[in-house]
Amino acid sequence: MAASKCFSMGAETLKVPMSLFSLNRQRLMKSLSDNPEVPNTGAVLLLEGGKQETRYCSDHEPEFRQESYFHWLFGVTEADCFGAVEVSSGRVTLFVPRLPPEYAIWMGEIHPPDYFKQKYCVDRVSFVDEIPSVLNEMKPTMLMLLNGVNTDSGNTCKEAYFDGIGKFKSVLNNKLLHPMIMECRVIKTPEEIEVLRYVNQVSSKAHCEVMRAVKPGMLEYQLESLFKHHCYSIGGCRHCSYTCICGTGVNSAVLHYGHAGAPNDRKIEEGDMCLFDMGGEYYCFTSDITCSFPANGKFTPTQKLIYNAVYRASRAVLSAVKPGINWVDMHCLAESAILSALVGMGLLLGNVEDMMRVRMGAVFMPHGLGHFMGCDVHDVGGYPEGTTRSTEPGLKSLRTVRTLQEGMCLTIEPGCYFIACLLDKALSDPSQSCFINKDMLETLRGFGGVRIEDDIIVTSSGAELLTDVPRTVQEIEEWMQNGNKTWGKNN
Amino acid sequence: MAASKCFSMGAETLKVPMSLFSLNRQRLMKSLSDNPEVPNTGAVLLLEGGKQETRYCSDHEPEFRQESYFHWLFGVTEADCFGAVEVSSGRVTLFVPRLPPEYAIWMGEIHPPDYFKQKYCVDRVSFVDEIPSVLNEMKPTMLMLLNGVNTDSGNTCKEAYFDGIGKFKSVLNNKLLHPMIMECRVIKTPEEIEVLRYVNQVSSKAHCEVMRAVKPGMLEYQLESLFKHHCYSIGGCRHCSYTCICGTGVNSAVLHYGHAGAPNDRKIEEGDMCLFDMGGEYYCFTSDITCSFPANGKFTPTQKLIYNAVYRASRAVLSAVKPGINWVDMHCLAESAILSALVGMGLLLGNVEDMMRVRMGAVFMPHGLGHFMGCDVHDVGGYPEGTTRSTEPGLKSLRTVRTLQEGMCLTIEPGCYFIACLLDKALSDPSQSCFINKDMLETLRGFGGVRIEDDIIVTSSGAELLTDVPRTVQEIEEWMQNGNKTWGKNN
Ligand SMILES: [Mn+2]
Ligand SMILES: [Mn+2]
Repeated sequence: MAASKCFSMGAETLKVPMSLFSLNRQRLMKSLSDNPEVPNTGAVLLLEGGKQETRYCSDHEPEFRQESYFHWLFGVTEADCFGAVEVSSGRVTLFVPRLPPEYAIWMGEIHPPDYFKQKYCVDRVSFVDEIPSVLNEMKPTMLMLLNGVNTDSGNTCKEAYFDGIGKFKSVLNNKLLHPMIMECRVIKTPEEIEVLRYVNQVSSKAHCEVMRAVKPGMLEYQLESLFKHHCYSIGGCRHCSYTCICGTGVNSAVLHYGHAGAPNDRKIEEGDMCLFDMGGEYYCFTSDITCSFPANGKFTPTQKLIYNAVYRASRAVLSAVKPGINWVDMHCLAESAILSALVGMGLLLGNVEDMMRVRMGAVFMPHGLGHFMGCDVHDVGGYPEGTTRSTEPGLKSLRTVRTLQEGMCLTIEPGCYFIACLLDKALSDPSQSCFINKDMLETLRGFGGVRIEDDIIVTSSGAELLTDVPRTVQEIEEWMQNGNKTWGKNN
Repeated sequence: MAASKCFSMGAETLKVPMSLFSLNRQRLMKSLSDNPEVPNTGAVLLLEGGKQETRYCSDHEPEFRQESYFHWLFGVTEADCFGAVEVSSGRVTLFVPRLPPEYAIWMGEIHPPDYFKQKYCVDRVSFVDEIPSVLNEMKPTMLMLLNGVNTDSGNTCKEAYFDGIGKFKSVLNNKLLHPMIMECRVIKTPEEIEVLRYVNQVSSKAHCEVMRAVKPGMLEYQLESLFKHHCYSIGGCRHCSYTCICGTGVNSAVLHYGHAGAPNDRKIEEGDMCLFDMGGEYYCFTSDITCSFPANGKFTPTQKLIYNAVYRASRAVLSAVKPGINWVDMHCLAESAILSALVGMGLLLGNVEDMMRVRMGAVFMPHGLGHFMGCDVHDVGGYPEGTTRSTEPGLKSLRTVRTLQEGMCLTIEPGCYFIACLLDKALSDPSQSCFINKDMLETLRGFGGVRIEDDIIVTSSGAELLTDVPRTVQEIEEWMQNGNKTWGKNN
């Protein structure tokens, strides 16, 4: 089984070896083999890849993006496939659709099974309509299917289904696989980290391009468009990891701005803060970066104070992160750093520990500090069995409560926002309003918000920072005013 | 009901008045009122708009695009809405989702119903959970839902469904609406034509940009990226009308190249033909333009011959199009023009009429000449009741067989391709192979293909050409070699 085949988008884009996926499969097989509930012989897992959809009743086909579990295990870019792995041997069978002859006219060359066998370094390739007979030959004592809840969406994944599955009813198991594959996805291998590094570099450079292109008078979506163009044309990223958030002015306080109801269509004004949260995606590996900066390239004193409050939180967390540290503690560390800075500037009055007890942090940062990142931007595994989600403001929005381990990939994204409904709520709550300098707060109502979002890998002793953009006030101002230089350690 | 409100993406992008949609509703109400099967009083239609989806089990939300029937009738950009129209009065009620208070933190300001009433110039706005009670007040004698088959996809549209629909069971009708609204969509109003003109201008200019950027050594997707960037940043088009087809070299013969299995990832070579089929979409109005040209900006003699064969077909059809002309005849006119040119260059030998009888045209142009275009790129209404689809090669791929009427919008997209499986089939069929100069054909096997695709409106006496790109060999060569000029009638 040659492991030398690579995925790449040509030119300077990253070559990703298929051994990335064979290693993922090995890791999963190891953990399945170690599970006493999995039979020693005859255990087979079967996953169904993503389908090419059409939009509503039309024949419009949205650009296909592989389902993330399937990608993680097989790295297959084509739609409508299935994949099976025999647990004890690790033998892989890929099932591809049997295409009609007309496909060659409309869609291009019909590749024979051997093409996919070579391309994806698998042991065998059959057609989807052969699944029952091929599975039969494997004499499965347990046919494991993927079924479980995604803790970010609350959605259950679609279990593999094929014509003839009924014959395997007595050996189906849809309980064991999901928690185990999810757990494997939480820890990134060196080969996965290499892809995450690459896509972070691409997105970092795209953010740099955007920062030096921004001018008051532009429309927010023009920067979204520029970001996408850089990621795709230079980095080979056809998809973004999520809908681009290009909030300016008051929109910078809308955490998930940019959707169809608020589609990045505001004109940027002199004096605005920009909060641009955008990430390219390469071969189904994501990035998630937020840059906050003044539209005109020069911080006002107030913008500098709020920005530095968030920056200090970001760097405090970055310095503290290492294996054994709990993520909830990191969230609280960020909150406390921001609250201290707000005390420092006179917006809050009193003792930060007292403020923490009444969840003041969530008034200014209602979201969680960060999340796992991988084949999904909100990657799986944040709440494994036995963990529970808090009901407290801010903490309830945490996408994971886990203790950090080497190889985890996370975002660190503290923020400070002036969101009308949250400010009003705090002002009307005596336990919180007692800490607030009301006059100063009123002057900040239209400020918007600041978020600083970096992506990291937890290493044996700390964190590797994947993101590489101007971050200090000085770096940002110099970069935006003197943009003919190139940025970053990779230049 | 103020008709002065407009949709726009700011800057120089088109302002689209809401009266476009009130006119569409008027037209539909007129045709429903004229239908004796629709009761004179109490007929109400209800449509369900598109839902914001998540991808697989994750919380990734693909960029929302409104469902086309719903857009055509209401022009609403937000997801998860419903719309009702009382047929006799034309009174419009829009139903919007009732959003939870947290929405304001994550997604932005929660707009009150009156905001949507003003924005979309409708008579009333209620919440989706109020549909049953609001409908009850209308005392419907017939509640018309949309149900019917899309003849391009074969898919049936999703009928409106809401909690409490059971109470209206006795008055539901899902048969009458679909053919009538589909028929209305076939004829474009002046206001719709204005949007189609605009998005064609944007896409035409983007194609011009692409043509002067192409260089051997680039990757196909870099031109896809450039096209999208121009359409979005200059034209306000967040979506494309379909997946960009950037076929070069032999890929230019793959009609729907560019999908996940063939994702525009080839490196462009010196001597290649490029076939770039791309269209931006503005406010759910589409465009669909194909430019074919040599990658290095200079046609070889053979490239010129094939290109001109297609160009002559294109212009022959463009001259012949007018109300009363049948589209199948136009398809045959294009076939015959291409076959004549292939005879002229010595690739085919014999009488074109004899070739037509054995469907030689479909060997080189297996697709239909063109299709309706509007809110869908393959717009609805191609095969109304009473029409039938041919089973003959080429003709069976026609997306409409209708007789042209003023106000129809169509693509004219003749092409000539050298597709291995079709050539081999023709060579092995004595009734076709007798016309072929086999030696010359072998030299053309790797040629790829040429398509010239323009968008038109059928006028009272002919056609208005919406597309504005370099089209003759001379125009293309001059534009590509001297790209510092601006192209087009609108400059
Ligand atoms: Mn994030
Ligand atoms: Mn077309």
